[in-house]
Amino acid sequence: MARESWTRESLAEGVQAGDKRALARAISLVEDGDPLAYELVRDLYPQTGRAYAIGVTGPPGVGKSTLISALVRHVRALGRSVGVISVDPSSPFSQGALLGDRIRLSDHFLDPGVFIRSMGTRGHLGGLAEASLQAMLLLDAAGKDLLLLETVGTGQSEVEVLGVSDTVVLVLMPGSGDSIQALKAGIMEIPDVIAVNKRNHPMAKTMLNEVRAVLSLDRDREWRTPIVLTEAVEGAGVDELWAKIEEHRAHLEADGALAERRRRNLAGEVFAVASARAKRHLEHAVADDPELRRLLDAVERRELDPLTAVREIMERVFFARRNGTEPR
Amino acid sequence: MARESWTRESLAEGVQAGDKRALARAISLVEDGDPLAYELVRDLYPQTGRAYAIGVTGPPGVGKSTLISALVRHVRALGRSVGVISVDPSSPFSQGALLGDRIRLSDHFLDPGVFIRSMGTRGHLGGLAEASLQAMLLLDAAGKDLLLLETVGTGQSEVEVLGVSDTVVLVLMPGSGDSIQALKAGIMEIPDVIAVNKRNHPMAKTMLNEVRAVLSLDRDREWRTPIVLTEAVEGAGVDELWAKIEEHRAHLEADGALAERRRRNLAGEVFAVASARAKRHLEHAVADDPELRRLLDAVERRELDPLTAVREIMERVFFARRNGTEPR
Repeated sequence: MARESWTRESLAEGVQAGDKRALARAISLVEDGDPLAYELVRDLYPQTGRAYAIGVTGPPGVGKSTLISALVRHVRALGRSVGVISVDPSSPFSQGALLGDRIRLSDHFLDPGVFIRSMGTRGHLGGLAEASLQAMLLLDAAGKDLLLLETVGTGQSEVEVLGVSDTVVLVLMPGSGDSIQALKAGIMEIPDVIAVNKRNHPMAKTMLNEVRAVLSLDRDREWRTPIVLTEAVEGAGVDELWAKIEEHRAHLEADGALAERRRRNLAGEVFAVASARAKRHLEHAVADDPELRRLLDAVERRELDPLTAVREIMERVFFARRNGTEPR
Repeated sequence: MARESWTRESLAEGVQAGDKRALARAISLVEDGDPLAYELVRDLYPQTGRAYAIGVTGPPGVGKSTLISALVRHVRALGRSVGVISVDPSSPFSQGALLGDRIRLSDHFLDPGVFIRSMGTRGHLGGLAEASLQAMLLLDAAGKDLLLLETVGTGQSEVEVLGVSDTVVLVLMPGSGDSIQALKAGIMEIPDVIAVNKRNHPMAKTMLNEVRAVLSLDRDREWRTPIVLTEAVEGAGVDELWAKIEEHRAHLEADGALAERRRRNLAGEVFAVASARAKRHLEHAVADDPELRRLLDAVERRELDPLTAVREIMERVFFARRNGTEPR
């Protein structure tokens, strides 16, 4: 079907049928902030909530994309359909391919049970949290059993993207000293599963022991985060990683914790999207309004203190209804 | 002067005189979101803009606090007065002391030319960006020549705190592989100066070479980021680090770039504070308003899609003026 001929109805049907072109088009509309995308997700929303969402995070260069590719292959062999969204700007997915990788990503692209999409981290009209949430809902409505969400483990927007995950997997590798320190200092949240990738590296055992030591400090949690050694390029350890993800899922499902987590996640996402919208609205308002620019100039000349400027900006942007100030 | 007897006038006088009790009280008022703090900074704002602000960032555990302590000692010997604000929750400053450290922080506390304050990263009524900005302006008005701002190198709020720095120093150590990868991937911004601390570590030279290799990828910048090897506990390399900071300052001052950077920084801070306020206003509004809670419940039951909920929340919170919805 040609690009122009999609209608709200045909797109909704296509997405629900798992049609790749319909999904690709729908997610592009989401990225463009097209009103049609909003209507589409609204139409499809009652049919969502069936997919299981797995967030895969970690510093750049640890092999998240390769591990995801290996996980996709693994769960496909189990007959599960998968949607992958990468919001990591440093991900090979974002460059369109896993270059030099032994796992042929093209296999996945030909597989009707797999849909892979990378999303830019900037330039979304409604912010990254909104775009990734909407894209996930589309893949969910498309009947994907599993959603894999790749994010790089830094920054607020990435945290918001991870916020929809049922299970969070942190990927580290030998040399991930900063992440270990961040876990230890309580600055990084303890994930549900940890994969130490590049297990053939001579320092892999050292890293494993460091991760173990850090996790042992936190004995009070109900779920004890398992650590798995993997070698994504060879697909080694991927079966065990998958088993641990499934264990975590079973743990959540056993006592109703999954429903509770999803409730909390959804509320958190709505709040994150609203915050991002408020921020963008502010950004546009200040850019467009010469009076607001004048306030900033006065601050720069030390004639007006920053907080008074903030108060005047807030009042003008949010609390005085005028024409043309609707949120974008 | 007793805690209760500070007035707006006596506080302003005390802060301007560099009185430690006045400064401590004023920053506490900032942290509490007390209206008096707002008035005080407004009164003092025309006298700010003289201090030079140095942001010191990096992963936890690399020795930022010890390095700052050594820098304080170094610049004190040069006769400069210093204010330190730490917004790193994992910082030893936040625990009130550098335990087990050879540099006696108590020396600094007794020195009238030094003021050190750690600020919590949570719980500020106006957000961390606002609290740290106001605290810095107070130290600036108190006549401190230098401001050192310690932040842990992750998260949006830390980026906002760093946003007021004239010079940004990134501290790494052997094992900081994740930070190297983040720099390489362009996910972490290139700082103005890099200190590789713990230079006595056997892997220090390797780390230095890795940092060099990453920086060599980016040859187009006007300022070439210098790398300094330090051993903060012994104070080694601190003179060279200080020299590089001074070089960067001279570079900025030479062609008017400092004024430009400060203009951009101030505008960015005003925007960050306004965004944080909008977010908190939203948070409180949703917490207080049963109608907004009902919207979230409908989302959780899949009866209302998230974006429609966001739109209704935005409309109700920001764009319909009613009694009792003023921003807090």
